Amino acid sequence: MSPTISTLGERALVARLQQRVAPAPGFVQVGIGDDAAVLRPARNMDEVITTDSLVEGVHFRREWSPAESIGYKALAVNLSDLASMGATPRASLLSLALPADFPLADFDALLDGYLALASTSGAFLVGGNMTRSPGPVVVDVTAIGTVGHRRALRREGARRGDELYVTGAVGSAAAGLAMLEAGCLREDLSGPARECLARYERPEPRLRLGGIVGRARAAAAGIDLSDGLADAASRLAHAAGLGIVIDADALPILAGTTAWARSAGRDPVELAVAGGDDYELAFAVSPKRRARLLGAARRCSSLALTRVGTFVAERGAWLERDGERTALPGGFSHF
Amino acid sequence: MSPTISTLGERALVARLQQRVAPAPGFVQVGIGDDAAVLRPARNMDEVITTDSLVEGVHFRREWSPAESIGYKALAVNLSDLASMGATPRASLLSLALPADFPLADFDALLDGYLALASTSGAFLVGGNMTRSPGPVVVDVTAIGTVGHRRALRREGARRGDELYVTGAVGSAAAGLAMLEAGCLREDLSGPARECLARYERPEPRLRLGGIVGRARAAAAGIDLSDGLADAASRLAHAAGLGIVIDADALPILAGTTAWARSAGRDPVELAVAGGDDYELAFAVSPKRRARLLGAARRCSSLALTRVGTFVAERGAWLERDGERTALPGGFSHF
Repeated sequence: MSPTISTLGERALVARLQQRVAPAPGFVQVGIGDDAAVLRPARNMDEVITTDSLVEGVHFRREWSPAESIGYKALAVNLSDLASMGATPRASLLSLALPADFPLADFDALLDGYLALASTSGAFLVGGNMTRSPGPVVVDVTAIGTVGHRRALRREGARRGDELYVTGAVGSAAAGLAMLEAGCLREDLSGPARECLARYERPEPRLRLGGIVGRARAAAAGIDLSDGLADAASRLAHAAGLGIVIDADALPILAGTTAWARSAGRDPVELAVAGGDDYELAFAVSPKRRARLLGAARRCSSLALTRVGTFVAERGAWLERDGERTALPGGFSHF
Repeated sequence: MSPTISTLGERALVARLQQRVAPAPGFVQVGIGDDAAVLRPARNMDEVITTDSLVEGVHFRREWSPAESIGYKALAVNLSDLASMGATPRASLLSLALPADFPLADFDALLDGYLALASTSGAFLVGGNMTRSPGPVVVDVTAIGTVGHRRALRREGARRGDELYVTGAVGSAAAGLAMLEAGCLREDLSGPARECLARYERPEPRLRLGGIVGRARAAAAGIDLSDGLADAASRLAHAAGLGIVIDADALPILAGTTAWARSAGRDPVELAVAGGDDYELAFAVSPKRRARLLGAARRCSSLALTRVGTFVAERGAWLERDGERTALPGGFSHF
């Protein structure tokens, strides 16, 4: 039988984690192992802090996703929140609630996924917590970043006539999840289908673009697509006291998403607006600043930035398709 | 039937929370409701950050403890970590994983307990997360504070011959928990017994004393007693490459703890060293700085500070009782 975490206990698990963490950067005065971490804040910067959790049975299933992906994604979804504020990651805290029979190999793999992203993103792991769970695995992460004073990209700020832009593609993660739900085997999937699965399991937080857009003041407002485009767009509109019209024809949808949706008898557009978990960014941009935004995007050359809608005076959220406007479906709710 | 949280959904629950939060202090640039919170760090201060969670079935049972206590305690255990670093709380994040049938009244009560302590301690709630749990209630909190540059009270730093001091009383929370486990009814408990229960359910983070001790550099090292005195003392000793001898006769034990232990056929001293959840502070102090420490304690007049042990050169952890030394029992482990 493969060893479980209860054979080691909390102290040994923390030690195992510490051995894997890279040497601390200079601003980390006290890292893992004390009662709390101590950071030296950067001057003339505001601090950005967010927390988000992945819960087994709600956000992932262990039989579907490797532990390494779960660790990666738990940090990625937090970094996406930093990206949507235009912040640069500096530190993170990892709080784990694990069943006693959680395999040690999965514990290590979860850390591998987390620490690999922590290393490439700059979200240095400075502390956390470990406890037993009598039920699901819960991975709760807090991420901390910095942003120039008053440069944080807020949710409010859109104006009537502003355009809604979205990074990358939408609906891919929802398609990936639907493939898992339908019992598709990873090995059997085509390249485009696997791309959807990768978007679900390993979303790439759009840190570089978020940072550039924030520093350039290229957008009036920004948000990430954790709960889908419909949810994000309506939140931006609501925060500004406006409405939003999404153009169905403009939506950037991957070929794998469209193919899967058609084969499953589902509407790719519906998946693209209502599906959660994409972790792309959405920006409200005035037509005057459009050039500045697209200039910023060119500095992240591999990342598409697509205009998908317009903010309007009438409050509400609509999808425009073949000349007709219908109410936008709601986003994904975790309750 | 009383309403559950699933009748409202995530947005309405967040709105319900926002209505209860006090107006934000000036350093909160962006609070609840955006992708992340934005704080303005204080100048010439280091930032202290910690996370700790309460898991139903591990740290509490809903049938034993009112939701208000659970909310209070989830923040209190984090503030205790800040206190042990000598830090002043400034902000906090609350991440909740709740079963869909969680009663709305309990949701409100949990917030009441959390927000009351957030308000009196200065740990302003700036953000968080809410999600469904398919199993236990999980309350994960991140607390953020500040401390003068290089003034954080670390775990390492004890020297041979230093004395070990502990605040308040030890073993009370373990006695309180044991009463709940034994099926004692709250209403039937005597005053001293209820005091133990209160220490278990509503530990008071020793923020004032921790802050004074840190600013005065009155201690060489500090830690909080989340997992018991034996665990804390041996961690301080281990971090310094030393050993620790605890004097059984010196332990500050409440009358209610002793009475309960005797009636249950248990050893009060064993409860006092091995029992977790006290959230008192322990300090390593050189005899030369003893006066400074006790002077600091006098400024928190209602809080006892007791010398309970000595750091020795030989590595290990012992309990000295009636002239005999035995190995200290281990602390509480969450696995």
